[in-house]
Amino acid sequence: MRELNVELGERSYPIYIGEGLLTDIAEIFARHQIAQKSPLLLVSDEQVASRYMAPLVETLRTAGYTVVPAVVPPGESSKSLAVFEQLITTALEAGLDRHSTVVALGGGVVGDLAGYVAAAYMRGIRFVQIPTTILAHDSSVGGKVAVNHPSAKNIIGAFHQPELVLYDLGTLQSLPPREVSAGLAEVVKHGLIWDEAFVRWIEDNSADLLALRPEALGYALYKGCGVKAEVVSRDEREHSLRAILNLGHTIGHALEAVAEYDELLHGEAISIGMVGAARIGVALGADEEVYTVTKRVLQACGLPVRLPAHLDTDAIMKAMQHDKKFKEGRMVFIVPTAIGRVEIRQDLSAALVRETVDRLKEEA
Amino acid sequence: MRELNVELGERSYPIYIGEGLLTDIAEIFARHQIAQKSPLLLVSDEQVASRYMAPLVETLRTAGYTVVPAVVPPGESSKSLAVFEQLITTALEAGLDRHSTVVALGGGVVGDLAGYVAAAYMRGIRFVQIPTTILAHDSSVGGKVAVNHPSAKNIIGAFHQPELVLYDLGTLQSLPPREVSAGLAEVVKHGLIWDEAFVRWIEDNSADLLALRPEALGYALYKGCGVKAEVVSRDEREHSLRAILNLGHTIGHALEAVAEYDELLHGEAISIGMVGAARIGVALGADEEVYTVTKRVLQACGLPVRLPAHLDTDAIMKAMQHDKKFKEGRMVFIVPTAIGRVEIRQDLSAALVRETVDRLKEEA
Ligand SMILES: NC(=O)c1ccc[n+]([C@@H]2O[C@H](COP(=O)([O-])OP(=O)(O)OC[C@H]3O[C@@H](n4cnc5c(N)ncnc54)[C@H](O)[C@@H]3O)[C@@H](O)[C@H]2O)c1
Ligand SMILES: NC(=O)c1ccc[n+]([C@@H]2O[C@H](COP(=O)([O-])OP(=O)(O)OC[C@H]3O[C@@H](n4cnc5c(N)ncnc54)[C@H](O)[C@@H]3O)[C@@H](O)[C@H]2O)c1
Ligand SMILES: [Zn+2]
Ligand SMILES: [Zn+2]
Repeated sequence: MRELNVELGERSYPIYIGEGLLTDIAEIFARHQIAQKSPLLLVSDEQVASRYMAPLVETLRTAGYTVVPAVVPPGESSKSLAVFEQLITTALEAGLDRHSTVVALGGGVVGDLAGYVAAAYMRGIRFVQIPTTILAHDSSVGGKVAVNHPSAKNIIGAFHQPELVLYDLGTLQSLPPREVSAGLAEVVKHGLIWDEAFVRWIEDNSADLLALRPEALGYALYKGCGVKAEVVSRDEREHSLRAILNLGHTIGHALEAVAEYDELLHGEAISIGMVGAARIGVALGADEEVYTVTKRVLQACGLPVRLPAHLDTDAIMKAMQHDKKFKEGRMVFIVPTAIGRVEIRQDLSAALVRETVDRLKEEA
Repeated sequence: MRELNVELGERSYPIYIGEGLLTDIAEIFARHQIAQKSPLLLVSDEQVASRYMAPLVETLRTAGYTVVPAVVPPGESSKSLAVFEQLITTALEAGLDRHSTVVALGGGVVGDLAGYVAAAYMRGIRFVQIPTTILAHDSSVGGKVAVNHPSAKNIIGAFHQPELVLYDLGTLQSLPPREVSAGLAEVVKHGLIWDEAFVRWIEDNSADLLALRPEALGYALYKGCGVKAEVVSRDEREHSLRAILNLGHTIGHALEAVAEYDELLHGEAISIGMVGAARIGVALGADEEVYTVTKRVLQACGLPVRLPAHLDTDAIMKAMQHDKKFKEGRMVFIVPTAIGRVEIRQDLSAALVRETVDRLKEEA
């Protein structure tokens, strides 16, 4: 088992990563004084619940917990105020109190949703994350929780740090291959912004990662969470440094907005976005290698690097201008200067960005 | 103008109390760097808006602010997730960004609702309170914001401290007398838990308070806010000490639950509850004066001290057992030991509480 501490003063918490951790959950919960007398709300989605919920409920009940299971439909549409309200109702009816804990068993959707329930219920109760996707290594660090508004993602939320994160590599084995690659995109991102050696390691071990071999997977999640934890602990509230986590996201979010639903997963969109950011880096003077390595490692992880030609450049540019990461009308771009190094730029010309977007349609 | 600082480390903020402060709001906002480039959401209820909104909007616009007004129906029913969602939609459509501010112009309802919008929008933007009721002196200190669930009050919320609080005594002149007295109940409470001299002062100046004379009113709000600030700064997250703010509330909340809508305002219910708590204090050994003074000062403020006889004691006892302030099934009572002194008790017998409730029906 690997253990990593997210350093946030009195809100610090550990991330445990290993095989079969769910079997030991009672012991881990006891170590963290997760209350047994107060009901515990266990939130999951249908796809994850059908595989992993029953044994977990059984383990926890045997250990003396009163478990209230709540299963939501899979997918982004569950990150809504309506589902949030249903969960609050469930919590109330089950008598959750100030000493209760909300446990999220699932990917980033369940984590963000259940986390916001924990943040809001009685103005904040305890929260535990059991991520079951690779992408959720990202959402399990930093305490950002939220639901969506019909016209804007993650607009209703809070910062609410978990008590602990428990990553059982066994649960990842059932992930569909496309979700595996999409999750790896954020792992690669963490390498690209902070740690060249890790980028090289990912490239060398991409086959083991795609095959979900526990040893490689555990290391990749450990390193990915580690970079994010490092950045977040220096800037919990996203005042400045934390912005570097948006590498690939300025273009990526615009692609998600313009593409048809499900044409591009989030990880796929930011993969293309990171190639764009690398191109911009090179245009501004970085070594050509920044672009070639970025592209190679993403492709090794089974990710797309070319922008689908039918996505309209004008529409993409417009979507970028609507992104909430704009400061007083200026685009904020995270630009690589070397592998493992980025800078925050607000001075890019629209012409350079447009040209970059156009060239993304010609990547091979 | 009086000024008071709520000490909460980097979340500290000032409360300004005085006549005609709304005229100077641009200067005060400038001092606090309330952003002018980003739209500002100004929330109020119909009754308050019809009196004070137009000139305020005018002043702010003249000073260069982009003001987005949002008026909700008056009353507790606006503290709902549905109205919350409408305000988030308004904020989004008006383009509020991370540098925007939400301003609450109104009583505790508007403050709690708008405060929760500020807490949740983009995971938290700036918040300013302009309280227009006496009761809101209480809600303007401590950062508790929330909306209600159909089956539980304040269950969906956050801790979100304002940037500043601006109490313009002029706006209080239009308060209906019953609201004046109900608001004074919390002022008296702040005296009873912390400051005997202030209790004596309230009794001596109750006529001026009921007449809303600015000098007396300003002092009472200053002292009331001061006690609350003192308690909150020692226990921001309600781990222990902050519980003393619930003097009169264990019984009071039960009365509100059992009484018909509007039969008892919150302040009226806790007035009766404080008399009950004083009786319990005397039963446990406090000087008889604790009871007589408590009752006298509340009556001087135009508040009821007798429990309406038709409210069923069984129902009240049952409602108390459902209060979320119960710790593992035990009633938490704040009990006066002297005037200006209370203790937190969890060991009261149900028999003593029941007897006290019954005797409250006989107060004269
Ligand atoms: N809070 C943050 O800091 C943060 C960071 C990044 C992303 N996010 C959010 O995360 C969400 C995306 O997360 P995600 O990609 O994990 O999405 P997800 O939770 O929707 O999971 C993707 C799909 O995989 C399924 N699934 C999950 N685990 C599985 C397993 N072990 N086996 C088989 N199927 C499984 C789910 O049912 C779902 O259909 C977005 O809403 C995004 O906004 C949040
Ligand atoms: N956040 C906290 O710490 C805290 C503390 C105490 C109470 N509260 C909350 O505060 C709320 C009660 O506050 P309230 O009593 O101010 O209620 P309120 O905001 O509903 O105001 C009471 C009534 O007076 C009217 N009104 C307000 N200002 C007026 C004015 N200047 N002139 C004429 N009419 C005016 C309102 O329209 C309303 O009808 C409750 O929801 C309670 O939960 C919160
Ligand atoms: Zn992302
Ligand atoms: Zn109260």
